[in-house]
Amino acid sequence: MEDALSAATSIGRLGEDAVLARVLPRLAPGESALLGAGDDAAVVAAADGRFVVTTDLMVHGPDFRLAWSTPYELGWKAAATNLTDVAAMGARPTALTVAIAAPPELDVAVLEGIADGLREALACLAPGAGVVGGDLSVSTVLTLAVTAFGDLEGRTPVLRSGARVGDVLAHAGTRGDAARGLALLFGEARDGSGEPDASLAAELRRREPELLAAQLAPRPPVFAGVAAAAAGATAMLDVSDGLARDARRVAVASGVGLDFDAAALGADPRLALAGAEDHGLLATFPPGTALPAPFERIGRVVDGHGRLTLDGEPVAALGWDPYSGWDGRAG
Amino acid sequence: MEDALSAATSIGRLGEDAVLARVLPRLAPGESALLGAGDDAAVVAAADGRFVVTTDLMVHGPDFRLAWSTPYELGWKAAATNLTDVAAMGARPTALTVAIAAPPELDVAVLEGIADGLREALACLAPGAGVVGGDLSVSTVLTLAVTAFGDLEGRTPVLRSGARVGDVLAHAGTRGDAARGLALLFGEARDGSGEPDASLAAELRRREPELLAAQLAPRPPVFAGVAAAAAGATAMLDVSDGLARDARRVAVASGVGLDFDAAALGADPRLALAGAEDHGLLATFPPGTALPAPFERIGRVVDGHGRLTLDGEPVAALGWDPYSGWDGRAG
Repeated sequence: MEDALSAATSIGRLGEDAVLARVLPRLAPGESALLGAGDDAAVVAAADGRFVVTTDLMVHGPDFRLAWSTPYELGWKAAATNLTDVAAMGARPTALTVAIAAPPELDVAVLEGIADGLREALACLAPGAGVVGGDLSVSTVLTLAVTAFGDLEGRTPVLRSGARVGDVLAHAGTRGDAARGLALLFGEARDGSGEPDASLAAELRRREPELLAAQLAPRPPVFAGVAAAAAGATAMLDVSDGLARDARRVAVASGVGLDFDAAALGADPRLALAGAEDHGLLATFPPGTALPAPFERIGRVVDGHGRLTLDGEPVAALGWDPYSGWDGRAG
Repeated sequence: MEDALSAATSIGRLGEDAVLARVLPRLAPGESALLGAGDDAAVVAAADGRFVVTTDLMVHGPDFRLAWSTPYELGWKAAATNLTDVAAMGARPTALTVAIAAPPELDVAVLEGIADGLREALACLAPGAGVVGGDLSVSTVLTLAVTAFGDLEGRTPVLRSGARVGDVLAHAGTRGDAARGLALLFGEARDGSGEPDASLAAELRRREPELLAAQLAPRPPVFAGVAAAAAGATAMLDVSDGLARDARRVAVASGVGLDFDAAALGADPRLALAGAEDHGLLATFPPGTALPAPFERIGRVVDGHGRLTLDGEPVAALGWDPYSGWDGRAG
């Protein structure tokens, strides 16, 4: 332990107060914070008498690797993925809380980088939203827990269960790029023993910046959530586990079938359907709706309780299960 | 991995949907949930146009050990500690979100037990509040992230910064019991190599049920937070890191000194001041206030920016730092 803490800037050596003194100035509580970090709890405005809330854990190993992600990208992604869940309800994101458990030997610069990524993702994807509070804890595994809040501004939340036969199926965001980025990392940025390798990742990053960014620091169309709700979206969700798997959730919740248009899914419809972590928005709209940008029509709502088809042909279950899909010993 | 997952009830073998199907029915979204778990986000009522929010991580190792805590106690404590942070603002707790990262080989019964503890702690400590949402993730280290919400019901939040010279210093809850319980566990429930031992803990539990319960499943006076605010508390906080350390936060934030009355702190004032994790409420009240039960007078607010005294004598800094206070290799 003493060796591990020998660096003067390890968080264990600095202690909680000193760490917070370096991290908190990099964050802003945002326009909805009536009281920010520093007391037992924060106070956040909820003008319409309700708030939207979603929470996610990101764990070193299954969810990210510091050999592949910069701390900045990690903070960015933690914000982006949660903001998209808020947007998928048709709400405007207002605030985040961020709890981090980290090994004592971690350099405080990692937490500073995470804070920078959180701040910049908020500024880019949800201007006015901020980090209102959080927690610091210790763990042998670097872990981020983000909870995000949103304001429905008087609108009815857009659920997964409202799709109706005849509706247009539409999507906003990338389709498959995040999965292609992850496949590149697994294929070309691991060392001989299968472990993530930072220098191989840096080389890959120079060759494939867009696909790696789609995986490591996605830019989901958060603003399009409010636009979709305002345009009358009947159902909506954040596509985190893959288009097919998440679409099936809409189909089951709504008691309908969904038929994808292969021509609209690009050169590799199977990858577009299977690829996880794009964090686009999948929504259904009444026929004839002028789709708000960047939504694109990718299919239609048909009869069939929970049934997915591609140009009318059944789509096998594709996607990702956080428990059964992960082997803790492999990359 | 296959060996570890051979149990039919491991969460990795069951998969996320089956795990949720077993865990969610044990939880209720509560009276403030306008939309509970199952969509991208929950929707929670915030009638007074604001909400209080606090978040905490609990990590296997530094924060709990399954050899010492039952899953039920772990869920109970995760709820209790966060509810107290909400109460310390003078708010009525309304809802929790709970994110859990767990090893794939964990038996689903552990998550069921955690859910039972969460539910019962809510029913006991904050009737009407519920679990509105969450997340399941994988990690080699069992980790719980709880975020709690509260309703100020029109009241001004009670901050740490409002104590005034001449105010009464009061405390509600146990003082030192949780630390005594932890000391017993470290002293008498570890095996020859220093690792937590379940059978030694079970034996200890029979002999010292109250002190172990104070540490493993605390019953903080959550309801007293609203009562304190209604009685005019000028400052308040949750005592998690030890009475002295947390009192110093009030003293610094308020620009005052705090003088403890040794006779009011029981047989061992040093333990009462140092012992962490009791999760009582420390508050200051204008002189002459009829203290709401179970608050007891334990001192007074005096001149002195951030200075703590015990019967007028300086109190050394005592307490707990989550980074510098923990050695990952030791119990």
